[in-house]
Order: sequence, then C-alpha cells, then structure tokens
Amino acid sequence: MGIQTQLDTYPSLEAPSWRHRHLLDMDDFVREEVEVVFNTADAMREVLRRDIKRVPTLRGKSIVLLFYEPSTRTRVSFEMAAKNLSADAINLTSTTSSVTKGESLVDTIRTIRALGADAVVIRHPQSGAPYLATHHLDASVINAGDGCHAHPTQALLDLYTVQHQLGKLDGLKITIIGDIVHSRVARSDIQGFGLMGADVVLCGPPTLMPPGWEQNPPRGVTIDTNVNHAVKDADVVMALRLQKERQQEGLLPGTEEYAQLYQLTEHRLSLAKPEALVMHPGPVNEGVEITPEVAQGNQSLIEEQVTNGLAVRMALLYLIVGGKN
Amino acid sequence: MGIQTQLDTYPSLEAPSWRHRHLLDMDDFVREEVEVVFNTADAMREVLRRDIKRVPTLRGKSIVLLFYEPSTRTRVSFEMAAKNLSADAINLTSTTSSVTKGESLVDTIRTIRALGADAVVIRHPQSGAPYLATHHLDASVINAGDGCHAHPTQALLDLYTVQHQLGKLDGLKITIIGDIVHSRVARSDIQGFGLMGADVVLCGPPTLMPPGWEQNPPRGVTIDTNVNHAVKDADVVMALRLQKERQQEGLLPGTEEYAQLYQLTEHRLSLAKPEALVMHPGPVNEGVEITPEVAQGNQSLIEEQVTNGLAVRMALLYLIVGGKN
Amino acid sequence: MGIQTQLDTYPSLEAPSWRHRHLLDMDDFVREEVEVVFNTADAMREVLRRDIKRVPTLRGKSIVLLFYEPSTRTRVSFEMAAKNLSADAINLTSTTSSVTKGESLVDTIRTIRALGADAVVIRHPQSGAPYLATHHLDASVINAGDGCHAHPTQALLDLYTVQHQLGKLDGLKITIIGDIVHSRVARSDIQGFGLMGADVVLCGPPTLMPPGWEQNPPRGVTIDTNVNHAVKDADVVMALRLQKERQQEGLLPGTEEYAQLYQLTEHRLSLAKPEALVMHPGPVNEGVEITPEVAQGNQSLIEEQVTNGLAVRMALLYLIVGGKN
Repeated sequence: MGIQTQLDTYPSLEAPSWRHRHLLDMDDFVREEVEVVFNTADAMREVLRRDIKRVPTLRGKSIVLLFYEPSTRTRVSFEMAAKNLSADAINLTSTTSSVTKGESLVDTIRTIRALGADAVVIRHPQSGAPYLATHHLDASVINAGDGCHAHPTQALLDLYTVQHQLGKLDGLKITIIGDIVHSRVARSDIQGFGLMGADVVLCGPPTLMPPGWEQNPPRGVTIDTNVNHAVKDADVVMALRLQKERQQEGLLPGTEEYAQLYQLTEHRLSLAKPEALVMHPGPVNEGVEITPEVAQGNQSLIEEQVTNGLAVRMALLYLIVGGKN
Repeated sequence: MGIQTQLDTYPSLEAPSWRHRHLLDMDDFVREEVEVVFNTADAMREVLRRDIKRVPTLRGKSIVLLFYEPSTRTRVSFEMAAKNLSADAINLTSTTSSVTKGESLVDTIRTIRALGADAVVIRHPQSGAPYLATHHLDASVINAGDGCHAHPTQALLDLYTVQHQLGKLDGLKITIIGDIVHSRVARSDIQGFGLMGADVVLCGPPTLMPPGWEQNPPRGVTIDTNVNHAVKDADVVMALRLQKERQQEGLLPGTEEYAQLYQLTEHRLSLAKPEALVMHPGPVNEGVEITPEVAQGNQSLIEEQVTNGLAVRMALLYLIVGGKN
Repeated sequence: MGIQTQLDTYPSLEAPSWRHRHLLDMDDFVREEVEVVFNTADAMREVLRRDIKRVPTLRGKSIVLLFYEPSTRTRVSFEMAAKNLSADAINLTSTTSSVTKGESLVDTIRTIRALGADAVVIRHPQSGAPYLATHHLDASVINAGDGCHAHPTQALLDLYTVQHQLGKLDGLKITIIGDIVHSRVARSDIQGFGLMGADVVLCGPPTLMPPGWEQNPPRGVTIDTNVNHAVKDADVVMALRLQKERQQEGLLPGTEEYAQLYQLTEHRLSLAKPEALVMHPGPVNEGVEITPEVAQGNQSLIEEQVTNGLAVRMALLYLIVGGKN
C-alpha cells in the first residue's frame, strides 16, 4: 500500500493545497500551512512505526544534500527521510567536492540544475545562500540552515513536537534561553511559535541578544534577562547550544559563568509549569547550557525532537517534491 | 517497461556490438563506437525526460566511485547515472578512506576486486592510474580523469553535445582556448573531435601549449596563438578552466593579463560563425577565461553539457556494465 | 526468490536461534554460534555468485556506518553487505559530520537512536566505544574495530576463510606475526581461533607483545620470538600490518630491520606445512611485513579474506538485524 492510499484516510490531505515550491524561512508560512505539515507528519509518524519504514512515494526522485557546514543530525535526518520515501539522496559536502577548490555556489547550483535534481537541501554558512540558489534552480530548495538567518525545518519540528505533546500552541509560554542573536534556530522558532499564537520569552546575556530588541522587541516576543523570571510558568523551556567560539569573540566571560547564570537546571525548571517541556535543538553541551539531569530527565523531549524531525522532513519532502506531480 | 524494451526501438542498439570492457582514453575508439554511444545516449535522454527517471537495467550491480581528487559534477553525474539505472553507487573518496593513510592504489583496487564490484569509476591525480587499475581488476574501469592525461567521458559528452545541436561533427571548426598542456579535457577532446572529422584549433599562451606542437601539431590540429584569428568562423568555441596554480608556477603573468589576451568575450565570440556554440567543461571561473555574459548567453551550452553528461554516462554504464550479461 | 526461501534449504538456519542483539567482541561467542555464522555465510556466498547479487531480506532497514577512523575495506564491505540485503546504508564519517566540531559520541548515538536506525556499525579509536554505544541505543551495535581492543567481524571472516579452505579449525596451528599488542585483529583472532580449538602461536618483537604474555600467555596461546620456529609446520601464517607510527614511538628500530627479522618471505613460508595458508587483514605494506611474492603467491588468501568478509558481514547483518523480526 502506497502512501497515497495511506494518506487518503487523512481528510485534510485529500487536497493538501500546498503552494510552496521552496522552503526558505518561516515567514513564508500561514497557520493553515503549518497545520498541513502537522497532519502530513502524523501520517509519516505512522509510517515510521511500521516494521518496514518505506513508502514508494518519491521513487525515482533525486534529492541532493548540499552541505557547506558540518552536520550530523540534520543531514542524516534528511537522508533517511528521502530514503524512507524511496527517493535517492546524493551527498555533496564541502570537504569531498569541488567546493573546496573555490567552485562558486552558483556554479554548483547550475550543475545540480543541469543534472535534473528534484530538490536541493542546502546548509550554508552565509545567510541568504538558499535564496540565491532559487534564482538558478528549477528544483525545489529546502533551507537546512543558512548562517544566522533561518532553519525552518527545525522550527517546524519544534512546533510539531509541542503540538503533538500538548495538543495546542495557542497561548503557550515558550521560553528560549541562550545565544539568541547568532541562532538561526531561535530566529525561526520565534517566527513559528509567534505565528501559531504562542508567547515567546527570550533570555540570555545582553551581548547575545539581537541589538535593539530589549527596547523594542518584535510583536509577541518578550525579552527577560532574569532567567528565573523568564522560565516562571513556562509551558516549554528551550536551551540553545552555546558555541564555544563566542567566548573567543569576547561576547562571553566564560562557559562556567554562563552556566551559573543561564544553565537550565532542575531548580530553574521547577519554576516553570509542572511537566513543562524541555527542548534543545542539539547537539547538546551537557553541563554548559543544560545539566545532564534535565537533558535526560523525564520532561526532556530532546530525542522526541529528533524523531519528529524525521517525520516532519518526510512530510516536507512529500509536500514539496511529491506535490509537483 | 525496462530499458531493454525501450531500447529495442532503437535499431542501432539491437546488437550494440560493444567490445570495450574498460573506458580509458579516446584513442581506444573508432567512429562507429562513438555513434553507438550517441544512439544510446539519445535513449537515455528520453529516460531523463520521464517523470520517474529510473530504469531497472543495472539492478544489483555495484559501481564504486573511487575519487582521489575533489569533484562535484563528475562524481555526482556518475552517481546519478548509476542510480538512474538502478545500480548501487559506493563512494570511496580520498578524505574519508584508508587512502589517506598511505594505502596504495593497487591495494585498494585489489580490495574492490575482491568485494565483487562490477565497475570502478576512477579519478586520480596521476596519469595512467586507471590503466594500472585494469591490471588488478576483473571489473570494468572507467577513467573519470587521470592527471593531465585523459578524461574520455567528458570528451564523449562534448562530442555528443555538438552532434545533438548541429547534427554533425564532420568538417566543423572547433576552437579550444586556454591551458592546453595541463588539460586532460583538451587532450581527450582533441582526439575525439579529430576522430569524428572535425578540425581542431588550439589557442592559448605559448607556456600552456604542449611543447613542440607549435612547430609540429598532431594531425587535424592547428595551433593559433592569435585568439581573434583562432575563433574566426568557428562552429564551436570552448574555453578551458584556468587553474590559478599556473600563476604560482610561473607559467602565467596574472589572471588579468590572461583575461585580456584570451578571455572569451562577446566581441571575440562575434568573430565566430553566427550561432556558434559556446562550451566549457566547468567549473567556470566567470570573469577569467570567459565573461559572465558569454557563459550565460544564449549561445552557451554549458548546462546542456552537464545534462548530456548524465545521459552519456548512463549510456556508457549501460554499454560497459550491462553489456557483460 | 528471497533469501528466506533460499535459506530455508539450509537446515541449520531454519531456527538459527541467534541470541545476540549486538556484536562487540569474540568473547561473547560460543562454538555453535560461530557455526551458525559459517552456515549463513555459505548461503551469502551463494548469493554473491549470482548475476544479481541482491536479496530483499532487509528492505526498509536503515544501517548507519559510524566511522571515526579512516577505512576502505571495512566500511565499503559493510556498505555493500547492507545494500546486497536491500537495506539502506547511511554513512556518518568524522570528517563530514558534526563529530568534527566536538559533538560527543553519546550525543551522536542518541541522535541515531531517535532517528530509528536498525543497526549501527561503529569504528572508533577508543577501546570500548561500541559498548558505550549499547547503553544509549535500542538498535544493534556492531563493532567494526575499537582502539586496540577488538575487531570481531575480521576474526569471524578469518575463521570462516580457514574453515572454508581446510574444512576444519580444530587442532590447526595458526601463526600470527607482527605487532600483537596494538592489534585488535590479533586480539579477536586469538580468541576466535582459540574458541574453535586451534593452537595460536604469536611471533614479533618483544616491544610489540602484550606485557607479561611471554611469561604467562593466555590458554591455548604460545609465544615464540623465533620466527623460523614459529612458522614451522603451521597450517596458517598470518602477517599483521606494521603501522609506521610504531617507529616514531620508539618501539621499533626501523622497518628495514623489522623486515629482516619478521617479514613473511618465501623461505620462511617454506618452513610451514606444504600449502599452508597465507593471510593478512590488509591493507598490506608489501615489502615490509610480507614480500610481494608471498602476498600475491598461490598460497595467499588475502583477497579471499575480503570476499569472505562481504559474505560474513551479510550473514551477521542478516542474523542481527533480520533476526529481530
């Protein structure tokens, strides 16, 4: 039984009315589209529970994974998502390809176009690189993280994880702690949770906050530099990975001091709602931004995020690549 | 419907009489064999136009991609060609394998033989490496570029691209501009176009010409260091990639001076035949050996070369690997 | 015809009674289990002789190849084994993934668990890493070499190669020459051959012997620093790869002196039984631990080991991953 038959039983998918050829940023989305992703991801979770986690939906489709930055979970997640849908995944990473000898992104993209790829999943250290790619490709472009700009598939899996766990997003208090200004995850999550009606509270060192936001935050967002107050009564507490490089750049006194002030500990978590959800985009620096007890505690959804990430990426490939037929 | 059924409609393929177990250099070919490749590539282009670009021809065959040099387009082209024919592609690149710890080529080749691979696609910085490989392999060896020696699949896709566009090769004037002496593409193209009856004109700095050729060029080849004269009335103008390393080696005064003397510009192109074809093996240094206007202009076949490269490599894998049954 | 039908004809496999979820070390095995591996590998060799070397047994299963050390033969062998059984193989090597940016093994393993992989094949420079992995994974863990500790799939393919060639293991004299103390192959082979009733003789420089073994060797093992005596009447002579680093560490005077004292030469081989088997785990340093004449001579099984390695790894994946159904 193909996914088509399978998905026919999901009424909302009978005419998924998916209008996006690309997936670049959360600001492209309206609420109904996020809900289509949720419903499709529900169907994909069902596929993932089967003994043979394989549907023939994208047989014969070629999906190029173009990664200019190291990645474990995102690249492998997309590769498994593609293969679970019977598509071919072709890896193009910067260490083993001509991109190391100065081949330009545009030239690489033109090559991929001419080879007839159906979609390109791109991660690039420069913000906006996936947009540039769309100007030179007939294929779909999926942003797997671009500089400090956006990481929309992470945001969608985060939204889906909370929705799946709590049954709603509207009116929830979502507290995000850490390096906000450099985090593409934070930026996309802020947009995504805001779109779905949640209240987002941001907490972290002033040097790691977007300039001007303390005085004038985006709509639906609150800045709160007091961590105890920021997590108070939160439904979800998300700790971001602290990049060690920030210390070298003079933005942080040290990881120990950071941990003392902002680490997500059992005590701080106890100030949130009972059974508040603990999230982290990974990879986790245990003992820095979060304690091992909290990261592996029974409120933690960190692994659930990874599992849902696979389902959400299968859903997105299905909608974006399969939807073209 | 398998490729077999599909290909049966191409009379010339009913008995393709393919005698090559390996593909090492263009000097192995006779005209009729190039025409078999053309006809098979036509069939593969038809497969590439389908919604599901997949035929089961090489199901269960294992093709190892053994790349000792960085590559985007050639490696990905072969990987997609293999997968489109339902073969398995196994990547073995020098950065992630034992070849980094000094394992010899011969030892690696013997391992691949013992693992039962059906074909090995090899790119190696040393001329002749693929020949060495044939002495230690039962499997087919396909040369994907060896040192400054040969790049026969590039030549075949270049020939096919011109044939497909102009309907013939015989009697055409093909002008190749750039670093001839270090270019395996040039060497294979010279042989291939010459074999098919075209006249090849080579143009470039004297330091980048094969020694002795100015006085005594190969049969069918003309050396012309005056770029305007070289492109005059050409049917095809091909610019080669300028390796920046050549400057460090003292073979070039600088890329600016090179561009001034040899860059393929709109003006220079206007001296060729109207609608002359512009080609480049990629990756392109726009603004060095070719202007962006020409590279992306409506006479440019640069992306068509990539697309045809996929069709030609599918054809070659079909003939070489499939032909063994 | 699927492997199931195929394997039904092997009586010993009708109820293979396979109890291992993981494959970590040879000391987990009892004789009957090694025999189950042998019988299953026999069936896999038959598959490898087919024109289409493919059975659908593990269709839809995902096998992650997590390699923290360079590898050609082991990684490719597992990748081909997985693909021959129709499983997906997902490569995660340290140069192209987040492991380069300090992501911990445990974090990577948790990600792989959450992605639902069915098995993880792990090679790691630290002894014990695969054991650590089992504490964080529901999936099966297969040790593809950990530090100086163990390499059980190499031992099983070595055992199988001798059994297949000589029809028995019991009572054979197996001489292993080289760097014993740093060799995970030696350690696993010693256990494996010992388990199956063979007598193992170890020979090499005293600095490359496990401390204390000369006085007090493990049961069934003899230490013999005289190479001529060590190979005398041996049924199997195995030379180990000499790591050049050992010289820098002061454990060796030089490779020339090593070769003079311990190289497996035609003369030394002539002291063993007529038609004694020559083995080497690869990659071979010809001219160091073994002469080219012996390595490529007609008593050499070095390539047969590679071929059998593919069959044995197919057998192990079948038993471990397929056995869960």
